[in-house]
Amino acid sequence: MRVIGVDPGNAVTGFGVVERTGALRFVGAGTVRGRGIVNRPQRLAAIYQRLLQLLDLYTPDAMSLERTFVAINVQSAFALGEARAAAMLAAAHRGLDVFEYTPTDVKLSVAGYGRADKGQVKQMVSRTLMLNDGGELADDAADALAIALCHLFQAKSAQMRGSSG
Amino acid sequence: MRVIGVDPGNAVTGFGVVERTGALRFVGAGTVRGRGIVNRPQRLAAIYQRLLQLLDLYTPDAMSLERTFVAINVQSAFALGEARAAAMLAAAHRGLDVFEYTPTDVKLSVAGYGRADKGQVKQMVSRTLMLNDGGELADDAADALAIALCHLFQAKSAQMRGSSG
Repeated sequence: MRVIGVDPGNAVTGFGVVERTGALRFVGAGTVRGRGIVNRPQRLAAIYQRLLQLLDLYTPDAMSLERTFVAINVQSAFALGEARAAAMLAAAHRGLDVFEYTPTDVKLSVAGYGRADKGQVKQMVSRTLMLNDGGELADDAADALAIALCHLFQAKSAQMRGSSG
Repeated sequence: MRVIGVDPGNAVTGFGVVERTGALRFVGAGTVRGRGIVNRPQRLAAIYQRLLQLLDLYTPDAMSLERTFVAINVQSAFALGEARAAAMLAAAHRGLDVFEYTPTDVKLSVAGYGRADKGQVKQMVSRTLMLNDGGELADDAADALAIALCHLFQAKSAQMRGSSG
């Protein structure tokens, strides 16, 4: 099973692809920006288009998306909602199921502690995926990998519950 | 010039199409809902798809979009941002320019009073477009027509300023 994690943001959207075929394997990660595009609909369209390209490149089986319930302010929530929509539409247009996790879900599942800080999450992501030190990963890409891992861990535990039931 | 006004909402997105060829003319109006679709990415995709169909049906020259800066709460702002994104992406994918107006812009331009209530706006929309009494219009469709009119009025005043300058 291959999962793309997406961390939609106001300025930067992180993505991270993880595969589990027995062991967990890092496939790819990075960030998507609408850099330099002032026009908002066009910037959104560029992000959507780039996400579609990533889905076609990595052919994941599912999208794991961070669903935050807090924002600095209402304006920031509007912008985050727009970025989330670009990701959800890209997934829907490639027939991918979308699974949503809160930041607490992600931290709990990856670092074992719901209030872990960004550094701890990045460290656990690097360790789990046997990346050197994660230093080369952008924060948003590391977050997105954590979101992908969260889904794989949850899917595994759901499967284990299923097989024991 | 033909303009589609869009009023994105949490549950219902209104649309209204107005044409100006000398006089102002009502072309069409209605609402788009993701009724019955529980899955959010699929609901968003359905709204986006329906908006694309409307753009293909009415072939407007521009989209006029309400940009609100307030929301009941952050959750509502996230959902509104998602609905706005579906409209912006549909416009971008049909090569339409998007013009954004605040609710105050719309009320000022249509009813001459920035704090006009929904009833007053609907009444002015009906009068301007020579609809009978507007009673048959859904509130969200009337709002969307007002948003379309706002752009036509602003475009006209920009044009007048241009020609006198």
